[in-house]
Amino acid sequence: MNWCKRNIKCGEISDSQLNNEVVINGWVDTVRNMGGMIFFDVRDRYGLVQAVIEPEKNPELAERAKELRSEYVIWLKGVVRKRENPNPNIPTGLFEILTNDFGIINKSEVPPFEIKNNIGTNEEIKLRYRYLDLRRPIMQNYFIVRNKLYHITHNYFFENDFVEVETPVLMKSTPEGARDFLVPSRINKGKFYALPQSPQIYKQILMISGFDRYMQIVKCFRDEDLRSDRQPEFTQIDVEMSFVDRDDVLSLIEKYIARVWKEVLNIEIPTPFVKMSYEEAMTRFGSDKPDLRFGMEIRDLSDVVFNSEFKVFAETLQNGGKIYAINAKKCSDFSRKQIDELTEFAKKYGAKGLAYIKFFQNGEINSPIAKFLSENEIKSIKTVLDAEEGDLILISSDKKYRTLTILGALRLEIARRTGILDSVKDNFSFHWVVDFPLLEFDEEANRYIAMHHPFTSPMDQDIPLLDISPDKVRAKAYDLVINGSEVGGGSIRIHDGEIQKKLFELIGLDEQSAENKFGFLLRALKFGAPPHGGIALGLDRLVMILTGTDNIRDVIAFPKTTTGLSLMDGAPSEVDQSQLDELGISLKL
Amino acid sequence: MNWCKRNIKCGEISDSQLNNEVVINGWVDTVRNMGGMIFFDVRDRYGLVQAVIEPEKNPELAERAKELRSEYVIWLKGVVRKRENPNPNIPTGLFEILTNDFGIINKSEVPPFEIKNNIGTNEEIKLRYRYLDLRRPIMQNYFIVRNKLYHITHNYFFENDFVEVETPVLMKSTPEGARDFLVPSRINKGKFYALPQSPQIYKQILMISGFDRYMQIVKCFRDEDLRSDRQPEFTQIDVEMSFVDRDDVLSLIEKYIARVWKEVLNIEIPTPFVKMSYEEAMTRFGSDKPDLRFGMEIRDLSDVVFNSEFKVFAETLQNGGKIYAINAKKCSDFSRKQIDELTEFAKKYGAKGLAYIKFFQNGEINSPIAKFLSENEIKSIKTVLDAEEGDLILISSDKKYRTLTILGALRLEIARRTGILDSVKDNFSFHWVVDFPLLEFDEEANRYIAMHHPFTSPMDQDIPLLDISPDKVRAKAYDLVINGSEVGGGSIRIHDGEIQKKLFELIGLDEQSAENKFGFLLRALKFGAPPHGGIALGLDRLVMILTGTDNIRDVIAFPKTTTGLSLMDGAPSEVDQSQLDELGISLKL
Repeated sequence: MNWCKRNIKCGEISDSQLNNEVVINGWVDTVRNMGGMIFFDVRDRYGLVQAVIEPEKNPELAERAKELRSEYVIWLKGVVRKRENPNPNIPTGLFEILTNDFGIINKSEVPPFEIKNNIGTNEEIKLRYRYLDLRRPIMQNYFIVRNKLYHITHNYFFENDFVEVETPVLMKSTPEGARDFLVPSRINKGKFYALPQSPQIYKQILMISGFDRYMQIVKCFRDEDLRSDRQPEFTQIDVEMSFVDRDDVLSLIEKYIARVWKEVLNIEIPTPFVKMSYEEAMTRFGSDKPDLRFGMEIRDLSDVVFNSEFKVFAETLQNGGKIYAINAKKCSDFSRKQIDELTEFAKKYGAKGLAYIKFFQNGEINSPIAKFLSENEIKSIKTVLDAEEGDLILISSDKKYRTLTILGALRLEIARRTGILDSVKDNFSFHWVVDFPLLEFDEEANRYIAMHHPFTSPMDQDIPLLDISPDKVRAKAYDLVINGSEVGGGSIRIHDGEIQKKLFELIGLDEQSAENKFGFLLRALKFGAPPHGGIALGLDRLVMILTGTDNIRDVIAFPKTTTGLSLMDGAPSEVDQSQLDELGISLKL
Repeated sequence: MNWCKRNIKCGEISDSQLNNEVVINGWVDTVRNMGGMIFFDVRDRYGLVQAVIEPEKNPELAERAKELRSEYVIWLKGVVRKRENPNPNIPTGLFEILTNDFGIINKSEVPPFEIKNNIGTNEEIKLRYRYLDLRRPIMQNYFIVRNKLYHITHNYFFENDFVEVETPVLMKSTPEGARDFLVPSRINKGKFYALPQSPQIYKQILMISGFDRYMQIVKCFRDEDLRSDRQPEFTQIDVEMSFVDRDDVLSLIEKYIARVWKEVLNIEIPTPFVKMSYEEAMTRFGSDKPDLRFGMEIRDLSDVVFNSEFKVFAETLQNGGKIYAINAKKCSDFSRKQIDELTEFAKKYGAKGLAYIKFFQNGEINSPIAKFLSENEIKSIKTVLDAEEGDLILISSDKKYRTLTILGALRLEIARRTGILDSVKDNFSFHWVVDFPLLEFDEEANRYIAMHHPFTSPMDQDIPLLDISPDKVRAKAYDLVINGSEVGGGSIRIHDGEIQKKLFELIGLDEQSAENKFGFLLRALKFGAPPHGGIALGLDRLVMILTGTDNIRDVIAFPKTTTGLSLMDGAPSEVDQSQLDELGISLKL
């Protein structure tokens, strides 16, 4: 070892080292040659401290210091003293180290961007040089918070008698919803393992095994076309409990979330969280994960305009549809262009158009549909929406849930555009959405699909409806929503084999397919399955909310791009023909 | 919910519930109809408690109880009272619950084996019904210990300032040694991700990123032909530190192991552990992971027999080989058949034959090579091996390390056969093997390969030898050995790009291949890599040692067979043609 090992971290220099000799190891942050003196900051994970060389007293050191460049790794020995010009912005800012000796441990080429928090560098460069990007203190902090979250999580569940069990990564392919990543088996050629989209069935099997309480922080995988807020591999906090009902799970998780907020952010949050039914969330906020940090609730205009001369409304109502609206407060001055943009935005969610009424400050109104509305109707609309002069009313009409979804999206878009979201960014809202429908009809597949997953238990009182109107059956399912983000979802599961079989039927799995895919679960259910339920929380998303970043790649050490590439190492990559031969597969491009 | 929720766990019934009404949920363990009374044990993860029904007092309950069978899931309400015949073998054995009411929550078919600790059932059946196997208390305990180990591990490293960081599961294929499991990329057809054999490079990248101290409990994957003690996916405790030397890592891990033994087994173990060089481990015990719980050390006979008339010895010595022996105490009565078995055993390790000398109790000797040995030579052999009447000396001669390896294996085999291993099974021996060679020559590949991995740093003083005699270079590598089992391995890594390049050259990677596989590491090393090192501990193996099982499938919840099958769920399995089409691959069987 041809370097001198530290006896203290850079960030730990404080009063107690005053006038003592210390040795630090770290990266040269910046070098400043200030006439008579050479100053340079040395950085490690724990902080940054200023070192100084006085050329007059130590010309040899000063000469050698000329070689120092940013990101060189050095050791440095010196005496801690008070700075003449303290830097109140850093914890060690009162002190500096008067260098007695130093050495370069490793050199660095000039990095492609500066190692500091605010840089404009494009993300591709940062991902390519991820090791440099991760040196920036703000990035390190994301992972310090993430680490704290692991710690709290493991301890909380341990203290609550949960057993952490690792479920397989090489498991059976049972795609239902998203695509599986597949792993060809070499020993069993022609067969494949799948990477877990979730350890759902295995955690249920663990309940059938009598483990009573299970948790795992576990990597899950979905081979989807990636959106910018998704990653092919993501981490969830996976929880399952036996002999419980819904409120046992909710209360356990509320206490967990409260502890996380307290220990990470020192914020006390009140429990229990509000529970809101799916129906209420949809009709008030147009979303099953509403952001409750602000209002702008959806109002039903169907009764108000049911007599109007506007054909679209009349037809919609005749066809069993609905007319809903939101009030964009103080937005009556939105330009034609802005309204057009909102209309385009609404169309992405299936809207055919977007009606609006501007209530100007001077008492006048502007609306393409005004001519079809009576004075009374306009007055009623104004009343129903609590509209005042200066407000903009956005109206949509179509099938009930489509209309609600359109307005829910518009509600968020207006909040984004008008600064509402920004003004609430330091607030937190926590609530449960409950009483989801068990099934939803998938027009494309022309069959029911499970709204959560096909292992979700129907509500006891709705079981008779399974045979007569499956769409009316509610599930014992629940989602945890924080700030309009779905942070977790779970349910009480089916522990009765016959009901499980019926569910498979309802989602169009014939007996043979059900057996092929889920036969092992059906078999396990025959041997004394306890009532059980659980939840999975998105760990990446929790870290994002706790650190206030909206980029999922900030909280994953080595993320993929939206095309699934790891720019740092070049994965995925071509492999040798011999590797493919051994696996018994060939490329078909 | 049509069942009554527990207010206490079965295993928790104690004095404090005496005369109170309790509700339990659990599995019916056994039902005994004892003339006037019905007794049945109810089991959950926390233990087992006896319930009783008195038919005279409660004929309706008694009638219903006729339906109860083993493994039925029930709720039961009753009053805790003292047992007339206490059962000292279980913690709740002083008490029973006089049943007031109960209900069947779920039924069970007759399980294919009993849910108790000692069953003779073959492993295939147990794996197929893993959920029932896992209900057995001994199996649950393996996972409770495993859970405790996670807990201690996370907390120990957290307290020591380590940051847990998740490295990618979908990473770049860089096979070196074992085969990678591959994952075809759908978005980038023709390219593949690999599952990590170890996050080695990524943890080094994290050191270059300035994380200073990293740990992760992480799944790793090797697509090998499975031996019975291997699994395709296994778990390691992965650790890396910056600005450290070897002894920093060893001391951190010793304290960790001591804490584990204290908290799991309540055993104090002395630290620091003995450090033994690779050379010493090989020459004394014939293994780089010697079991130090017993002696039977290898002795060098080369000097003793260098003049002997036995041709094999003479030729071996002429060719630079060695003659070694061990003393199997009190084994002079081994039969011809037993000796033959040992010879066959030795041949598996490359022996051509096996010489022996029996020192009988009556002073006589028996040995096929006695006629070639002088009386003095035999006497010297006896002296060198501390042999007494009744002992059996086993002698092997060949190239030095081959001979040592043969005798190392024989040493263990003798210990197994004579009950030595059994007699030390409750002892623990902990030590480090250090000073490994950096490289070993692979005759088959006709090139050097890295003994640990090609990122291991050579010893500073041996660096000049890299160019002239690479086989003489020692590595800054270390293995943790517990009871003859390699529990962990690590090293100080190369942080100098030029030395890293040289290593790649030495193991026969040309510049282009090195760039293709490890270019991203070489690039990262150019930007200020700190000195760093670490270790990876085998978590599965640690749990095995802590629980005293020698079956790795006991400590993995859903293990694979040696042919990579998961018997419970049937993975791996065939997948739809459409899935293959999407991935751009086809089967070539």
